[in-house]
Amino acid sequence: MRLLFLLLLSATCAYAQENTRFTDARSLMITGKGLPTDPVYVRLDSIQTLPLTPAVKGLSKHSAGIAVLFETNSTYIRARWTLKNGLYYANITPIGHSGLDLYARRNGRWQWVGVGRPGDKTIQNEQVIISNMDTTLKQFLLYLPTYNQLTSLEIGVAPDALMRKPVKAAIDTTKKVVMYGSSILQGASASRPGMAYPAIISRRTGWDVVNLGFSGNGRMEFPVAELLATMPASCFVLDCIPNPSPAEIRERAYPFIKHLLTKRPEVPVLLIETVIRENGYWDQKVGEDTKLKNDAIRDAYTKLKAEGFKRLYYLPATDLVGHDHEATADGVHLSDLGFMRQAEIVLPILQKLMKKSSSK
Amino acid sequence: MRLLFLLLLSATCAYAQENTRFTDARSLMITGKGLPTDPVYVRLDSIQTLPLTPAVKGLSKHSAGIAVLFETNSTYIRARWTLKNGLYYANITPIGHSGLDLYARRNGRWQWVGVGRPGDKTIQNEQVIISNMDTTLKQFLLYLPTYNQLTSLEIGVAPDALMRKPVKAAIDTTKKVVMYGSSILQGASASRPGMAYPAIISRRTGWDVVNLGFSGNGRMEFPVAELLATMPASCFVLDCIPNPSPAEIRERAYPFIKHLLTKRPEVPVLLIETVIRENGYWDQKVGEDTKLKNDAIRDAYTKLKAEGFKRLYYLPATDLVGHDHEATADGVHLSDLGFMRQAEIVLPILQKLMKKSSSK
Repeated sequence: MRLLFLLLLSATCAYAQENTRFTDARSLMITGKGLPTDPVYVRLDSIQTLPLTPAVKGLSKHSAGIAVLFETNSTYIRARWTLKNGLYYANITPIGHSGLDLYARRNGRWQWVGVGRPGDKTIQNEQVIISNMDTTLKQFLLYLPTYNQLTSLEIGVAPDALMRKPVKAAIDTTKKVVMYGSSILQGASASRPGMAYPAIISRRTGWDVVNLGFSGNGRMEFPVAELLATMPASCFVLDCIPNPSPAEIRERAYPFIKHLLTKRPEVPVLLIETVIRENGYWDQKVGEDTKLKNDAIRDAYTKLKAEGFKRLYYLPATDLVGHDHEATADGVHLSDLGFMRQAEIVLPILQKLMKKSSSK
Repeated sequence: MRLLFLLLLSATCAYAQENTRFTDARSLMITGKGLPTDPVYVRLDSIQTLPLTPAVKGLSKHSAGIAVLFETNSTYIRARWTLKNGLYYANITPIGHSGLDLYARRNGRWQWVGVGRPGDKTIQNEQVIISNMDTTLKQFLLYLPTYNQLTSLEIGVAPDALMRKPVKAAIDTTKKVVMYGSSILQGASASRPGMAYPAIISRRTGWDVVNLGFSGNGRMEFPVAELLATMPASCFVLDCIPNPSPAEIRERAYPFIKHLLTKRPEVPVLLIETVIRENGYWDQKVGEDTKLKNDAIRDAYTKLKAEGFKRLYYLPATDLVGHDHEATADGVHLSDLGFMRQAEIVLPILQKLMKKSSSK
């Protein structure tokens, strides 16, 4: 009898799965974008990146920080997603660089639900993310891959379930925090896309946090400042000190930041020092280089403050990731432990800055 | 002049690297082992696993929790390591499953130094882990891969550097904590081998913590209890509730634990409930199953306590990984954030139990 019941149950599930109704995610609500783009799953499109370096052009196609919001009462959620590349990173989980990460709203908070696991260098992926839920209507937030380009995404629900854009979205796209920076910001080495620190801050606040982290880049080329200044930001965060050399920071930081402050006087700008590279406590060259970078950005800050720019703020790296030296996956890139620590340091500062923003 | 200097420096480095002196790690100090084995980098050898299941036989070859201790004054450390398999895990970084993780002693603590990054499914790996150190004599601790079998390891230092077993090792192999459990214990999804929670506890205390986590297993088969009872443990930790079914726990936990308590009356035994599966807050079947498992192990504990076993202790899962639902990579396996939280809960309990242990 029990076997028969299990067989029937399994047949019912298979039937339900076969009849899954898929919705193209482009018809749902998309968050985490500084400007509209074509196609939608890139952070910057080809027209926006025209004056940028080839490296940033490529990296801007990664879907880091972009998320889909929807409401459904389905008991299960599936996803079909297509990636541009089959990738390998020694320091990032495949779920992080090429997977999906689902949250749902419960008791006024975003709570983690499930992940979509990519196959090994698999371009076409399909996964059940969660099953056996109750049939109350819930709002969901699905983060896209941090280090890969997404070319299509369909979200599947039970055939008779409601599936729509949220009636009252818990992410407010009129409150954008635009963050510009390095691989760390982009999300290496978060265990899943939702653990990059911009994503954590977005969930905690309901702000639409835009992730413009560019692995190995974020070197403050002036055309990037010109592009950022066109975005409807309530606050800018420049966490872009890890990659430029001390000389590049001395040359570029001042005009870059001054452009933002001048073009967007209503918008606070937060500068963040580069996190201390953990191997720099042992490798004397790395340690010295990190110090020179932070000296250079601090000098740019001091000069601009002396010129009277009131909405410029500065966060030293001192406490960013704690003091136990355990917060990175590889000495540079934050693990979830590091991201949680950095989010908890940056979040209360941003809460103050968002109150000072005249761009709301 | 500066260019000439850099060229000379780079030539000197290349020269130094060419002349790296490699030491077979088997001649150094090996920690994290319950019993001696042949070969040395496995957790249990073929003779010890004779009565165990094929799955545990295979998994026992993974080098989880095993670490090499050595002292050197070299300015750099290289490693050559050979793996049995080229692997893919969606939820673990390659550094975690197949890489190396180096710490050194500073100011009476273990501090992170660097990682050895494996290539994509690369069997033979060679990497510089750290460079440009000063030439003071330091003690190092190198963790081996958590989810792969290591078949050879050589550690390379500068040709004129000292390289030896530590004269006074900062891990005390006479204080063994033997931990038995699941994939979580084994180290999925630590970002690097040193972030599995047994490794964190070992660094903080100087105890030799033995990792007998078996992915998808740790199902309390009776021969495992017989094997554990032969190990020179000062304390046993049974974190093995995630994988057996509620029925298996009801059948196996009582005789398994009773055997340990009876054979080794001097050794405290800590039972840990299964961590709440994060998807179980949404997937009603998973949530119910987790509850039934913890009910079953709690009943075994209560029965044994009623029989008068004083050295049996119980840790509920309630606070193990915090309450923000963010501590896993995939709903089951702890990220570094989860491991740090679990280590901080388990560590003070073990400190009390180690004081009660008569096996020192």
